[in-house]
Amino acid sequence: MLEIGLVGLGTIARAQHLPAIAANPGMQLAAIASRNARLDGVASYPDLAALLAAEPAIAAISLCTPPQGRFDLAMAALQAGRHLMLEKPPGATLSEIGALQDAAQARGLTLFATWHSREAAAVEAARAWLSGKTLSSVTIEWREDVRKWHPGQEWIWKAGGLGVFDPGINALSILTALVPDVVLLRADLHIPQGRETPIAADLHLSAQGVPITATFDWRLAKDEIWRIRFETDQGTLMLDDGGAQASIDGTVLHSGENREYTRLYARFAQLVAAGQSDVDLAPLRLVADAFLIGTHHSTHPFTP
Amino acid sequence: MLEIGLVGLGTIARAQHLPAIAANPGMQLAAIASRNARLDGVASYPDLAALLAAEPAIAAISLCTPPQGRFDLAMAALQAGRHLMLEKPPGATLSEIGALQDAAQARGLTLFATWHSREAAAVEAARAWLSGKTLSSVTIEWREDVRKWHPGQEWIWKAGGLGVFDPGINALSILTALVPDVVLLRADLHIPQGRETPIAADLHLSAQGVPITATFDWRLAKDEIWRIRFETDQGTLMLDDGGAQASIDGTVLHSGENREYTRLYARFAQLVAAGQSDVDLAPLRLVADAFLIGTHHSTHPFTP
Repeated sequence: MLEIGLVGLGTIARAQHLPAIAANPGMQLAAIASRNARLDGVASYPDLAALLAAEPAIAAISLCTPPQGRFDLAMAALQAGRHLMLEKPPGATLSEIGALQDAAQARGLTLFATWHSREAAAVEAARAWLSGKTLSSVTIEWREDVRKWHPGQEWIWKAGGLGVFDPGINALSILTALVPDVVLLRADLHIPQGRETPIAADLHLSAQGVPITATFDWRLAKDEIWRIRFETDQGTLMLDDGGAQASIDGTVLHSGENREYTRLYARFAQLVAAGQSDVDLAPLRLVADAFLIGTHHSTHPFTP
Repeated sequence: MLEIGLVGLGTIARAQHLPAIAANPGMQLAAIASRNARLDGVASYPDLAALLAAEPAIAAISLCTPPQGRFDLAMAALQAGRHLMLEKPPGATLSEIGALQDAAQARGLTLFATWHSREAAAVEAARAWLSGKTLSSVTIEWREDVRKWHPGQEWIWKAGGLGVFDPGINALSILTALVPDVVLLRADLHIPQGRETPIAADLHLSAQGVPITATFDWRLAKDEIWRIRFETDQGTLMLDDGGAQASIDGTVLHSGENREYTRLYARFAQLVAAGQSDVDLAPLRLVADAFLIGTHHSTHPFTP
């Protein structure tokens, strides 16, 4: 039985992490750490340091806090000898994840940087269908309403908060799981006046010569869309609803129940049992590249 | 004898690459590619494609062109089966270097991403002196006059041109060669009105808890300085003149002739002979992190 300590009890933790841990027969939620929240029947601590000090038997920590400030928590968990699972993105910077990898390796601990969208219902079917076909282009459209998904959250607009790349990195995580050698060629970042992160971004990418475009937009109030369109020599694959549905030239290939977090925790248990880590930086690397070479455009002020 | 084709015949190529190749007895400059320049006694081509087509016997290419646009050249050289040496920074983005690594590995070719400042005269002595001592802080000051070093160059101010990180990355390459697990905590980027890249940057970093600050500034007309100060439990190590001189509490530890490029080409020949690659992304990763989480500050317009 793998005992888990969960840190951060926000929306994503309650909606996804708690049910997924409860559904895993080899896993037990042994404690939580949260400044404000408590959970009936589970040991609750105000912060990770208190949890680590009081619960030496908890072998693994799962972090669901925002990326800013997550590094210190992650390093504390590893230094206390605990396996570690990280929500996406695995850190605020690439360099901090490098340091976490070194710390985990030095202690023989599992570090698992999760990308939940890679576990979406139809991603595996899409991979199988694309295999052996010749890709001619990829078009990503990821448009949603920031007011709906991040009501009142200020951290997303601060430097390091990623802005529209917070959802967009999910698309990039699917893309890099299905297509090798994705390279960023150009990025246009649309940043509301007075904010530090983009509300929309247009990317031009390439994978071994195949053109890829991505449009991320947080300003859509209706008809949200999370779609990746793959044009091939044998038809068009459409991955919709963030990877939940795949169709070929309009005919459904695969559609299924969302089991993303159930699969992530199953994989975490496997990694711990095998003494392995899984840290793929490709999605965050593309986001860092977009900030590195991106052209900034000032747009209308955003009112929450 | 390793035959080299040199691409780009700007200031750095003439001042550093040509003499270093000439000084290496196991190496021969077999051709150059340059839109405007020619070199007496050496086959000259208008671009890399012409060089590759006409010179199948040239085993290795050295790229000295600016980072923007370098990716297509680098990929063309690898796809033509040539070993490849890259000036710093090795690319405009991290993702493109990942694709180059894959291409080199797939073809059994050497890819060498150089960081010339790591070969500065006193860096090795500094590493030896730091070994076994306890670091308490590191302070980097890298101040120079952009008008002197980049007269009339517009690319440094365009998105992807790195701005003051063009020299600053040299400091970061020395730092990451001497100190493990350097993590970026905060960055302030000072960007002249109407430009896209910073003229100055202040970084707060950390290496296993040791505080590191870095100040990069392109606005200094006199008394330029390229200094890294290491405070330890056994005294202060000062690395000056971009790594050329090391002193301990004011007493010179090491000072020597600049042989950076001679050492780089010797290393390139070794890597080719051994069938190995050497690509350390740590310096560029820190720069990408600085753009990723950096706070932008608008400063006075820059007049060349």
